Amino acid sequence: MPTILLTGFEPFGGETVNPSWEAVRRLDGWECRGHRVAARLMPCVFGAALDTLERAVAETDPVALLAVGQAQSRAELSLERVAVNLDDARIPDNAGNRPVDVPVVAGGPTAYFASLPIKAIATALRSAGIPAGLSHSAGSFVCNHLFYGACHLRAVRRPDLRVGFLHIPLAPEQAVRHPGAPSMAVGQVTAGLRIAVETILATGEDCHEAAGTLE
Amino acid sequence: MPTILLTGFEPFGGETVNPSWEAVRRLDGWECRGHRVAARLMPCVFGAALDTLERAVAETDPVALLAVGQAQSRAELSLERVAVNLDDARIPDNAGNRPVDVPVVAGGPTAYFASLPIKAIATALRSAGIPAGLSHSAGSFVCNHLFYGACHLRAVRRPDLRVGFLHIPLAPEQAVRHPGAPSMAVGQVTAGLRIAVETILATGEDCHEAAGTLE
Amino acid sequence: MPTILLTGFEPFGGETVNPSWEAVRRLDGWECRGHRVAARLMPCVFGAALDTLERAVAETDPVALLAVGQAQSRAELSLERVAVNLDDARIPDNAGNRPVDVPVVAGGPTAYFASLPIKAIATALRSAGIPAGLSHSAGSFVCNHLFYGACHLRAVRRPDLRVGFLHIPLAPEQAVRHPGAPSMAVGQVTAGLRIAVETILATGEDCHEAAGTLE
Amino acid sequence: MPTILLTGFEPFGGETVNPSWEAVRRLDGWECRGHRVAARLMPCVFGAALDTLERAVAETDPVALLAVGQAQSRAELSLERVAVNLDDARIPDNAGNRPVDVPVVAGGPTAYFASLPIKAIATALRSAGIPAGLSHSAGSFVCNHLFYGACHLRAVRRPDLRVGFLHIPLAPEQAVRHPGAPSMAVGQVTAGLRIAVETILATGEDCHEAAGTLE
Repeated sequence: MPTILLTGFEPFGGETVNPSWEAVRRLDGWECRGHRVAARLMPCVFGAALDTLERAVAETDPVALLAVGQAQSRAELSLERVAVNLDDARIPDNAGNRPVDVPVVAGGPTAYFASLPIKAIATALRSAGIPAGLSHSAGSFVCNHLFYGACHLRAVRRPDLRVGFLHIPLAPEQAVRHPGAPSMAVGQVTAGLRIAVETILATGEDCHEAAGTLE
Repeated sequence: MPTILLTGFEPFGGETVNPSWEAVRRLDGWECRGHRVAARLMPCVFGAALDTLERAVAETDPVALLAVGQAQSRAELSLERVAVNLDDARIPDNAGNRPVDVPVVAGGPTAYFASLPIKAIATALRSAGIPAGLSHSAGSFVCNHLFYGACHLRAVRRPDLRVGFLHIPLAPEQAVRHPGAPSMAVGQVTAGLRIAVETILATGEDCHEAAGTLE
Repeated sequence: MPTILLTGFEPFGGETVNPSWEAVRRLDGWECRGHRVAARLMPCVFGAALDTLERAVAETDPVALLAVGQAQSRAELSLERVAVNLDDARIPDNAGNRPVDVPVVAGGPTAYFASLPIKAIATALRSAGIPAGLSHSAGSFVCNHLFYGACHLRAVRRPDLRVGFLHIPLAPEQAVRHPGAPSMAVGQVTAGLRIAVETILATGEDCHEAAGTLE
Repeated sequence: MPTILLTGFEPFGGETVNPSWEAVRRLDGWECRGHRVAARLMPCVFGAALDTLERAVAETDPVALLAVGQAQSRAELSLERVAVNLDDARIPDNAGNRPVDVPVVAGGPTAYFASLPIKAIATALRSAGIPAGLSHSAGSFVCNHLFYGACHLRAVRRPDLRVGFLHIPLAPEQAVRHPGAPSMAVGQVTAGLRIAVETILATGEDCHEAAGTLE
């Protein structure tokens, strides 16, 4: 059965859980429209995250990859539009690396667009009552690093692998220690991931409703 | 069996649901520590809200009242500390009233403090993984109006009735139409209300951890 | 010549300047509509701030007092509507005091409303191109402490002294160290204070345009 | 004398001024380190903005271009890092165009990085007491459109033209009608532009302090 690969990250930045992995792991083995979900955990480490991803792709041979990561300031499921060829780490990663102004892939293009139908996914999520939107920057830490690396893998070796990245809010039990931070229940994130997978499999060309930002 | 009164509001401001009532109604009849919860729906109308509250109090004779209301900008369960003797409506209420700079109760004191153990409730909520905090203003619309009216009822006629007000975030299905707005699942709000009721019944004097704001 | 008293605070919370004092001090001795401004510096210390204020009032015998304080999260000149009888300090004051859940004045009323024409001031500021609005909470630190103490002074000993409190944004040179924090040039704050003083002297009864908040 | 080109935009989105042009126009003809500033007004129109820019570049033959635009949600001078080959307009431009999901330049690369020393500029601004930082997205409206077009011009025809984009807050007189919006005095923006020009001319290679974002 063909595979959809979902990835989540290990905890970082002093947290003891990462809701991206908590949500993704619940879908390991789930079957949808003739495909099976494979869930894989990524280290929050520059370089090692890409190595782990490449092994997971080689092993599962997926038709689509949706990487998921935690974003403390977001209130909604946030589909990233652009992966940038830039590592600029404000804090160290989990191995103590702190690259500044170096490319993810030396000689790679400046950026890639997501190749999943992200507008259709956002619309399907909102129709199901789950707050969702598009984002034009995944930052410059390990999330963007993994997203760019995955897009590059598609560009150079796996043209049939559609790639996207989803940033998710903190889990409520994390937000407890960050006064005022928005949160989303992990169960709702998982429900959103099911909708995303269904939409990926049901959608060829993305829809084109306006979803831009002014600034 | 003695009663705990929980109130929620009807929808307002163009919404078709109000998560305060959706969360509160699920607890109608719930028994906790020898008390039974009575849930009542309040109109989002100046004056009429207080009439409805007074009837509900007369009918249920509660030992404690926790009024609940929707707050679009809040990300957490927000326990109000101060009820102010002021109506100043930026939008009309559900009956078209728009009072400006009039007291809730003519001749009443400028403000009342909540009489529930709100710091203990916030601590218990956070311990259970539910984002919560204190707020120093319930605004000047119908939420504050009801809160002040309830405090005044306690002051003049029901000294044994402990009173508090809880502001809650939008439900996710509402936040879908308010890009960037934080939200909380109604099920989590209901879980939080159970904890609040338990804490009210288990707590005599409130705890005194610092929970102030600088500005 | 009758006096208008303006007060600013000394720096606190690790800052080396306080824009409230930087703006206020520039107006010391300014004459407006037959009144002279007296500017006084307040310590950021519970208790001592009130002592200093009482001496300044005794010395200058003002017809009106506008106390000014720094508020890191505000983007506009923010006229406080309510002073609350509560000290609840999240950080120590400049003398190391950290009162929690104690009244500003034992036995005092729960709150006072400002007695300056704050809606007229906000309208005049906006007409002059200076962002301004009303706020329903001055917090529970030394700013609210001073505001409440001034209101109480009016209530018990100086019925002719009109009292208000203005929260102002960080100065730009402070915001430099707080990424994303809004700021306002001290020169613009001073221009705003001139307008506030003129409006206080020109206005008897405050205007009553809606300026409430929903939550 | 060699030229530095600064551009600002005409008002859009219902505003009657655009602070980018108000700040830029004040520097027309200013001489700095053997260079003269040319200030040009850009229409807030897809396509026409690029035509106007190309003419301005042809006419002034600049060594560097700093394009400036208004960003309502920003509190600081915000140096854009990435221009994306995407038009996705949430509102119509000043000619009524509303492109959705079309490239700025058909066949162009997905993105360009700024070629001005933006980290050095941000550091110089903060040293001068002016709030400043980096941004990883200029949105998908006419600002990003102009930024991308300028970067593409450099890539295909003017390799010696260094290009950057600066987003600036609302002017205070605009923020008056947007309660809670941060603002910056136009005089401070102009002071910041002088520092930016000086830094561009004094800096060869950009500095490499970490300035990334996590998400």
